[in-house]
Amino acid sequence: MLTDIEIAQQAELLPIRNIAEKIEIQEDDLEYYGKYKAKLSEALFKKLERKPNGKLILVTAVNPTPAGEGKTTVSVGLAQAMTRLGKKTMLALREPSLGPVFGIKGGAAGGGYSQVLPMEDINLHFTGDMHAITAANNLLCAMIDNHMQQGNQLQIDQRRILFKRCMDMNDRALRYTVVGMGGKTNGVPREDSFQITVASEIMAILCLASDLADLKERIGNILVAYNTRNEPVFARDLGAQGAMTALLKDALKPNLVQTLEQTPAFIHGGPFANIAHGCNSLRATKLALKLGDYCVTEAGFGSDLGAEKFFDIKCRFGKLKPACVVLVATIRAMKYNGGVKKEDLTKENLWALEKGMVNLQTHIENMHKFHLPVVVAINRFYSDTEEEIALMQNFCKKMGVDCALCEVFAKGGKGGLELAKRVCETIDMCSEAESEFRPLYDEMLPIKEKIRIIATEIYRADDVVYTAQAEKAIKEIEGLGFGNIPVCIAKTQYSLSDNPALLGKPKHFSITVRDLRLSSGAGFVVALTGDIMTMPGLPKEPAALRIDCDNNGCITGLF
Amino acid sequence: MLTDIEIAQQAELLPIRNIAEKIEIQEDDLEYYGKYKAKLSEALFKKLERKPNGKLILVTAVNPTPAGEGKTTVSVGLAQAMTRLGKKTMLALREPSLGPVFGIKGGAAGGGYSQVLPMEDINLHFTGDMHAITAANNLLCAMIDNHMQQGNQLQIDQRRILFKRCMDMNDRALRYTVVGMGGKTNGVPREDSFQITVASEIMAILCLASDLADLKERIGNILVAYNTRNEPVFARDLGAQGAMTALLKDALKPNLVQTLEQTPAFIHGGPFANIAHGCNSLRATKLALKLGDYCVTEAGFGSDLGAEKFFDIKCRFGKLKPACVVLVATIRAMKYNGGVKKEDLTKENLWALEKGMVNLQTHIENMHKFHLPVVVAINRFYSDTEEEIALMQNFCKKMGVDCALCEVFAKGGKGGLELAKRVCETIDMCSEAESEFRPLYDEMLPIKEKIRIIATEIYRADDVVYTAQAEKAIKEIEGLGFGNIPVCIAKTQYSLSDNPALLGKPKHFSITVRDLRLSSGAGFVVALTGDIMTMPGLPKEPAALRIDCDNNGCITGLF
Repeated sequence: MLTDIEIAQQAELLPIRNIAEKIEIQEDDLEYYGKYKAKLSEALFKKLERKPNGKLILVTAVNPTPAGEGKTTVSVGLAQAMTRLGKKTMLALREPSLGPVFGIKGGAAGGGYSQVLPMEDINLHFTGDMHAITAANNLLCAMIDNHMQQGNQLQIDQRRILFKRCMDMNDRALRYTVVGMGGKTNGVPREDSFQITVASEIMAILCLASDLADLKERIGNILVAYNTRNEPVFARDLGAQGAMTALLKDALKPNLVQTLEQTPAFIHGGPFANIAHGCNSLRATKLALKLGDYCVTEAGFGSDLGAEKFFDIKCRFGKLKPACVVLVATIRAMKYNGGVKKEDLTKENLWALEKGMVNLQTHIENMHKFHLPVVVAINRFYSDTEEEIALMQNFCKKMGVDCALCEVFAKGGKGGLELAKRVCETIDMCSEAESEFRPLYDEMLPIKEKIRIIATEIYRADDVVYTAQAEKAIKEIEGLGFGNIPVCIAKTQYSLSDNPALLGKPKHFSITVRDLRLSSGAGFVVALTGDIMTMPGLPKEPAALRIDCDNNGCITGLF
Repeated sequence: MLTDIEIAQQAELLPIRNIAEKIEIQEDDLEYYGKYKAKLSEALFKKLERKPNGKLILVTAVNPTPAGEGKTTVSVGLAQAMTRLGKKTMLALREPSLGPVFGIKGGAAGGGYSQVLPMEDINLHFTGDMHAITAANNLLCAMIDNHMQQGNQLQIDQRRILFKRCMDMNDRALRYTVVGMGGKTNGVPREDSFQITVASEIMAILCLASDLADLKERIGNILVAYNTRNEPVFARDLGAQGAMTALLKDALKPNLVQTLEQTPAFIHGGPFANIAHGCNSLRATKLALKLGDYCVTEAGFGSDLGAEKFFDIKCRFGKLKPACVVLVATIRAMKYNGGVKKEDLTKENLWALEKGMVNLQTHIENMHKFHLPVVVAINRFYSDTEEEIALMQNFCKKMGVDCALCEVFAKGGKGGLELAKRVCETIDMCSEAESEFRPLYDEMLPIKEKIRIIATEIYRADDVVYTAQAEKAIKEIEGLGFGNIPVCIAKTQYSLSDNPALLGKPKHFSITVRDLRLSSGAGFVVALTGDIMTMPGLPKEPAALRIDCDNNGCITGLF
């Protein structure tokens, strides 16, 4: 069997100008990055302003398991299948981060015969967006430390600097650092820590900003520190927003590439799905909706994290109305949720499957709470038996939702035709009425009430417990006037609860909020539950060891 | 008067494909980065292999002063002027680093009517080369720390890790840091420090590598640490060279842009001129020599640092034979060398000028030691008087070197025609014989002997003094078998000596070498004299404060 990168390298790519032509983008609106990648001009947004929007399809999943669910692969495959059905379909996905590429995960551009291309470029520097975010983030940090060094007019308290340096790398040694050592000429000593770039608030801002003016304003609004009088210091107080916007002006432009079957793909932005909202940029999604009759997009982790934030943060800010949810599930993941060990997942186990499907059930019910129709995509694995598949299909039928077997990894778009048909039928059925979508909560509610609604309605917790630190943080944030913005909950992705060990549908538990952070630039409050990692580490055998580049520039070892 | 960026923004650029056409590069060999920038394919090198080389012209300068000499501006202006004379001329320059752009310096793409374009892009992310270097550098660092965390099989001594993290930013708080704090799961605590990206050995390697295979081998050869048995640990021992090469494969390709007058310009690589060799990539220079009858290039700081390294490191490695040296000098710089204070430089002062020209004299003599003809470019400033200019012209005449007044900042190529004529005449005169260029020293000599030759012949020191640490380092480096590679001296740029306060031609002094570092990947030994800064800081009013980006993406405040 061929590896992902081998399949990708055998593919025949169309020059990106031909992809653009197909969707009526003029060459003037393309900024090429090599032959197969382009950024799209600011002017294009204005040109398309009056075009009606296509239908928005969100691909999400059950809680992730070690078996892997293949959500990105299904997204790519579904878009390819819809294209095969003659539907004008655009794909909108996140950009991979270099950290996981060299860490445990390898690439993040789909898999098998459902990939976005050129996969090596997309997985490495792509069009430089990540690097621009890193640079803008770290310019702000350098300006904070320089301000303290040069007299500290704002009286920044070096013990309360909230904004952190970042690097697009899995580097655990940078989690806890001390900077500014070496005496008077070398800065003010203080504790600091680095986040991975995708966890930076700058990434979240880039993905939510509507245009350059909005980007600059949001950057100015970042809460960077408190001063010695306990007052907030914002990025605008340091005069950093102009130079940071200059660094980000090209990164704000969506990137156009193609799938293995030449479906247009907008790959742009990729915030973490715990500390941030976990989906590609609002601008890319909006552009895709203008250019296609359908836009297939994806949100990070399971629907409890990714989809909820997609709806309550991204759709709310962008006034988007999704038309349909595709919920990816696998037989293996359901058996894992039913208590089967990873090494036994290839054996048939109807009992465990039945038991584990309570996880799928909860995700389906949750999606209905946003008043959206759901189609379940059963992402088929070679070891799935007919009996197992039938059981899952019947389960969906009983729940009154459509489902479809999906073989897009092995067969590309052809393997997603059934799913594509179900999705189109579902949308057609609903489209007579306007989409009934609505967010879960009113953003004007108090912070605790918003958290309570998410925790009880989505996670199915009995209640929410706050540490003393969390209570203090809520008071502070509401005192600053930021109580009325959406909440972004940082929680483990492995469970509906805040305990990664509790699979299926956990019962009789509380969610513990241990602290809150204000992302006043991005426009949400982060509620932290459990240990949330914002700087991953490399594993014992990092993917970097097998990644190579031959004398002709051909890259190997990216999966 | 218009600012640099205003002039740049009013310019009419040719699409880069038209610039490429003019020099017979086929579209197949271009990888576009937007409309006005392109990387050049690997295949182009092979296609041009058999073409004869053009003539190589090095632009260097007297010791820099606070008045500014305008070496890059003269380089651009000279190339433009030669183009006006009908000579097929290419320009090869370094890429600017983001650090100085946001720090004190503003942009670094020439000035006035002698600039390379698009200046905003070139000064900001350009084609992402700096970011790729940063990523490759920091991947190696993450792999070092991860190796220690995961059992430390190589027994790396965390007190003797030589390879440092980097960031393309002026950030003094990162000069002295502690990383790996926070307990067992968060790395091994150790002292670390960040360099600015252009000071990274990866940058030096990129600029000296002949192709991808050579790049990978050099990366593998980087000495990253010693183990607890005091043995060297190289990057190849960590298996990092493949993934790092994958990150650098596009960065190794030279970038093509244009000047304000549409002269083709290769802007590629930009190593520091103290810790490294300070000139653009060997590959860009070689490509420019194949594509043009003339290539104008530049080396960092004054000729004592930049030109010496250009000849003894870059030309030696690349087997280049320069045809002519252009030495940039200003009346103001010479008066400053003659003892005039910065604020009095606009007043006529023939006495100080005469006195200060001993600096120019020394640089001319030094260039002759490489058996190269010199043309002095007097870069005119509005306050220069006729008498001052006449004095300087007579001085050059007495020394037997050609000189030309140069007004390329105000007039573009037109202001450099006299200089261009002198340069062409000089080359024509010499070209009957092959260039007699030869490096200053035999690289097979012992380290101390090589340093002695540079110090006495170029800096005009009486002798060289070594600290105990330096003595130890030499023994260690020679013991490792690296005694037979060129020496790269890190010295203040402001004086021929190692004391920045000594102007003109210092006498009766010793050069003190306080330590040495092995850049075994780049292929040279760095001898450190005085305090050498490899991570600059931001000034009290950083340029970042005035840099802005309006709602249409138009950038202001870059100089």
